[in-house]
Amino acid sequence: MATEPKALEDLFHDTLKDVYYAEKQILKTLPKMAKAAKSPELKKAFDTHREETEGHVERLAEVFEIIGKAPRGKTCDAILGIIEEGKAVIEEYSDSPALDAGLAASAQAVEHYEISRYGTLKAWADQLGLKDASKLLAETLAEEERTDKSLSALGKTVNAAATKKAA
Amino acid sequence: MATEPKALEDLFHDTLKDVYYAEKQILKTLPKMAKAAKSPELKKAFDTHREETEGHVERLAEVFEIIGKAPRGKTCDAILGIIEEGKAVIEEYSDSPALDAGLAASAQAVEHYEISRYGTLKAWADQLGLKDASKLLAETLAEEERTDKSLSALGKTVNAAATKKAA
Repeated sequence: MATEPKALEDLFHDTLKDVYYAEKQILKTLPKMAKAAKSPELKKAFDTHREETEGHVERLAEVFEIIGKAPRGKTCDAILGIIEEGKAVIEEYSDSPALDAGLAASAQAVEHYEISRYGTLKAWADQLGLKDASKLLAETLAEEERTDKSLSALGKTVNAAATKKAA
Repeated sequence: MATEPKALEDLFHDTLKDVYYAEKQILKTLPKMAKAAKSPELKKAFDTHREETEGHVERLAEVFEIIGKAPRGKTCDAILGIIEEGKAVIEEYSDSPALDAGLAASAQAVEHYEISRYGTLKAWADQLGLKDASKLLAETLAEEERTDKSLSALGKTVNAAATKKAA
């Protein structure tokens, strides 16, 4: 056992494992959200984001390679909690005209978790002089931010649909 | 028991309870983060944010009043997971020069959860024609976004400090 205190390199590696686990969980969850969504546009948004997420996992694997580590996940309680809340929305609002509004909101909670983590990882990569890693993390960060913005726009449509009373 | 499907009003109320619970948890956690932080600037940022959070709880109580409901929380798995990860950082990095970098990152994960929830609640308040509620939620949203930005700026300092080897 090393007695030397952990360094920023370790924190970077730990957080990389956290996000790797999170992305894999998201990959499993997005098809369920697409299946539950009523709006074709929202279904499509979830499908598109699943495809993007596959690319995010690949980029993370490249970052692991850059720091000379095997790509491995570490249980991320944050994403499990966020996904759990999304599942509760699907269960409690399955018959509701507000289901899609709830699904879009859950997806935005996921996006914001990722935005915070990729923002952090990019800042740490910069601090550690890992230029190639920083570039890969910045690419995913930009995609997560774009997805969040498109969900906000789509949200307006599904929120309006939610206030129409169900038959 | 009502057999009518849940409406956007119910989703708004449920999510309000979720965020109310989250803010109360954050209120309990920020003093622990301030205590753990080594940098006086980061300690001060956590203290300031605790004061702001008291205001956020009060605003949420006002929103509950606007919709004619008692201010009550509902367990929020997302914030519990996010806070759990912050606790793990405090435990695993207590002796590390990277502790403050980890604390600032954990706080940003909290901020982003709140940004997503307040953004959603504000959009729903607008859709439901709750103008006063929308204004209150927008005020808190702006404060959370400001806190996130100031943590990003502060992060640069604590990240740089993290790469100086401990004595």
